Amino acid sequence: MIKFNCEGAGRPDISTLTEAIEALKTLKSKSGEGAEFTGWMELPGDYPKTEEYKAVKEVAAEIREKAQVLIVIGIGGSYLGARAAIEMLKSSRHNQEPGNPQVYFLGNGLDAFDIYQVLRLCEDKSVYVNVISKSGTTLEPALGFRIIREYMYSRYSAEECKQRIIATTDKAKGVLKGLADEVGYRTFVVPDDIGGRYSVLTPVGLLPMAAAGIDIDKVMDAAAKAQAEYSRESSDNPALLYAAVRETGYRRGKTVEIQSYPGESMRFMAEWWKQLYGESEGKGRKGIFPASCQITADLHSLGQFIQDGEPIIQESMVRFEEPAAKLEVKATEANEDGLNYVAGKDMNQVLLAAQKGTMEAHIAGGVPVMEIVLERPDEATFGEMVLFYEIACGISCYMQKVNPFNQPGVEDYKKNMFRLLGKK
Amino acid sequence: MIKFNCEGAGRPDISTLTEAIEALKTLKSKSGEGAEFTGWMELPGDYPKTEEYKAVKEVAAEIREKAQVLIVIGIGGSYLGARAAIEMLKSSRHNQEPGNPQVYFLGNGLDAFDIYQVLRLCEDKSVYVNVISKSGTTLEPALGFRIIREYMYSRYSAEECKQRIIATTDKAKGVLKGLADEVGYRTFVVPDDIGGRYSVLTPVGLLPMAAAGIDIDKVMDAAAKAQAEYSRESSDNPALLYAAVRETGYRRGKTVEIQSYPGESMRFMAEWWKQLYGESEGKGRKGIFPASCQITADLHSLGQFIQDGEPIIQESMVRFEEPAAKLEVKATEANEDGLNYVAGKDMNQVLLAAQKGTMEAHIAGGVPVMEIVLERPDEATFGEMVLFYEIACGISCYMQKVNPFNQPGVEDYKKNMFRLLGKK
Repeated sequence: MIKFNCEGAGRPDISTLTEAIEALKTLKSKSGEGAEFTGWMELPGDYPKTEEYKAVKEVAAEIREKAQVLIVIGIGGSYLGARAAIEMLKSSRHNQEPGNPQVYFLGNGLDAFDIYQVLRLCEDKSVYVNVISKSGTTLEPALGFRIIREYMYSRYSAEECKQRIIATTDKAKGVLKGLADEVGYRTFVVPDDIGGRYSVLTPVGLLPMAAAGIDIDKVMDAAAKAQAEYSRESSDNPALLYAAVRETGYRRGKTVEIQSYPGESMRFMAEWWKQLYGESEGKGRKGIFPASCQITADLHSLGQFIQDGEPIIQESMVRFEEPAAKLEVKATEANEDGLNYVAGKDMNQVLLAAQKGTMEAHIAGGVPVMEIVLERPDEATFGEMVLFYEIACGISCYMQKVNPFNQPGVEDYKKNMFRLLGKK
Repeated sequence: MIKFNCEGAGRPDISTLTEAIEALKTLKSKSGEGAEFTGWMELPGDYPKTEEYKAVKEVAAEIREKAQVLIVIGIGGSYLGARAAIEMLKSSRHNQEPGNPQVYFLGNGLDAFDIYQVLRLCEDKSVYVNVISKSGTTLEPALGFRIIREYMYSRYSAEECKQRIIATTDKAKGVLKGLADEVGYRTFVVPDDIGGRYSVLTPVGLLPMAAAGIDIDKVMDAAAKAQAEYSRESSDNPALLYAAVRETGYRRGKTVEIQSYPGESMRFMAEWWKQLYGESEGKGRKGIFPASCQITADLHSLGQFIQDGEPIIQESMVRFEEPAAKLEVKATEANEDGLNYVAGKDMNQVLLAAQKGTMEAHIAGGVPVMEIVLERPDEATFGEMVLFYEIACGISCYMQKVNPFNQPGVEDYKKNMFRLLGKK
């Protein structure tokens, strides 16, 4: 389970803790704003018992057997969770590794070069497609799917395409559901009671994850336990404490939270977290702006600002107790580079010293630093992180009196764009 | 040349413009704090005339001929510029493309798995190494080089290693220079008058860029012209205007600047920019916190916060007049997905509509939006961007009365880390 350490930020006072417990009660009793979108809370326990979950695993096994490339088409919550899981558990260079199908994410932007490049990488390879969109009308994935559909039909027979294209969409309505039913694509359901950014443990995230070789049983099992653990109405619930401590920072003018994460493979977990918090909290001229920083790479970049810039920053530092790989630094006889002082140490010990040294420096610089301690980069930890951050996010939003589950602002750019493109 | 449009943020007033011109004068006359580190200003004009520049191109040609993998070891300014250039001009998936040597960046963190993975990808491939460190004692690259050096000597003879390892380091002193001279590695010089984050157009950035197949003559030629253009003491100098407008925003409480960039290939240009500004400005409890947002991917993520969250954000939106690739959306007879309203349009027109729609929405939400308009993603534009952002950064810092060229805060975590690791 995740440990939360707030020594570097200070424990929240009793009244803030009480507020956080009230917010958690609102979330659990489904009595707050947006409560109709809290299906993600029961999901980890219930979903694995369903027929659909079995089908997700079967289709994933088929993809692993028959596909060399899986193209996943989706934007926002429809790709960030799966990409985060795959990069964390497989690596950011997973598409260069042998064995698994390569997984490419398209339809999350409007860059033609990106599409050409992926199609070039598909040459002579067996391709499957998973298109993910609740409505089917969101421009980026819809356009991506139009282009990829044409490509698939140019390479495969209609019968083959029926087998190779899988739609994750609304259970009954919408453009994508209509199209899938008409042609006969297999479909999985985006539940009505779970919004995009909370959907990683639905077929939205689970199918690409399982297709990439992630053991989703382990993810769901850990998530179900985490759901119980992080729902406890107690001041030693780490999710509740995290929400209370960051809110305390916010009220003291720390309007930016930097998640500092250990290494490239965690970059997209931070991106997933940024979406979850940014889109949930950023409303009504309120909210903590989420940013991220890679340790130690970005200490030679943003580190200076965190330490000594405009004092608007609080930090949540993510670290692993056990690393993905061990590597002992060897002594050299000549000690030409003067590094023998770390000889005999494992790289991860050096990383932990860097993280500890950074914490001390940032705390000395007046930055409240929270520590989020994970066991190791595995399926269970991923499942725990999802529930930890989702529950804490719900608590944070209710403490700030905003709806954690809508995103009214996102509609504005779409409306303008549709007008500029002449959509009726 | 880059165009700067501040309609969406408002023109700065005369006194702020006057301040910006004064700051530019300070920068040009080398009379401000840190002036001994402004060698990057003359560099684009002078450096291509040198013998060393010729040698950079020759060694790069040798790497392109003989290597299938180039491992670049460096942290902060010693890798961000080259990585940004390669991803912008080749693509973020360049290592999966045939032809060029693959380029992997190591020594910018302490993740053992990252090292194992790169070494696995090196199997049966011809490997060259470029280690970049002014001193040779920065822990991450020094450790990375110790491990990679051992790997190289396990694969190649000492004579071969002498040919395959190239050091970019101090001209005379330091651990890495000593080691390189002793063994006989070829060396390139990190100039004394240019700090890490301003060093992309020195051998630090140029050798990896040229090895990856980027035409550095075109980069330097454009950079030299840009240097002249963006040094003009005039209110129509776009770099000066950018500095003045963002400073105006800062004085109005916009303590975060989001650079929104069009597509995955520009992610590391934004990372380079974040280092340049964060490390230069973030001092003495001042500075604009630099963050980034990918368009359109992150509009379904951070978009909500920008639009309607805590009103601390100003935005600089980067867009291209011409895209890297064209792709016309085709009409379909059935119009099953309802997308025929964009049929006949090029993808880039759709992207530009999305960017324009976003600007309108964010401006309506009270966010000052600056527009940075680039011609196309090519060598010349890269060279222009480097000088545009560097000069504007110098101006911004002098307006805020901080030294643009030091990073005292970065030392603190290092000191703690060294103590925790028992370094004498």
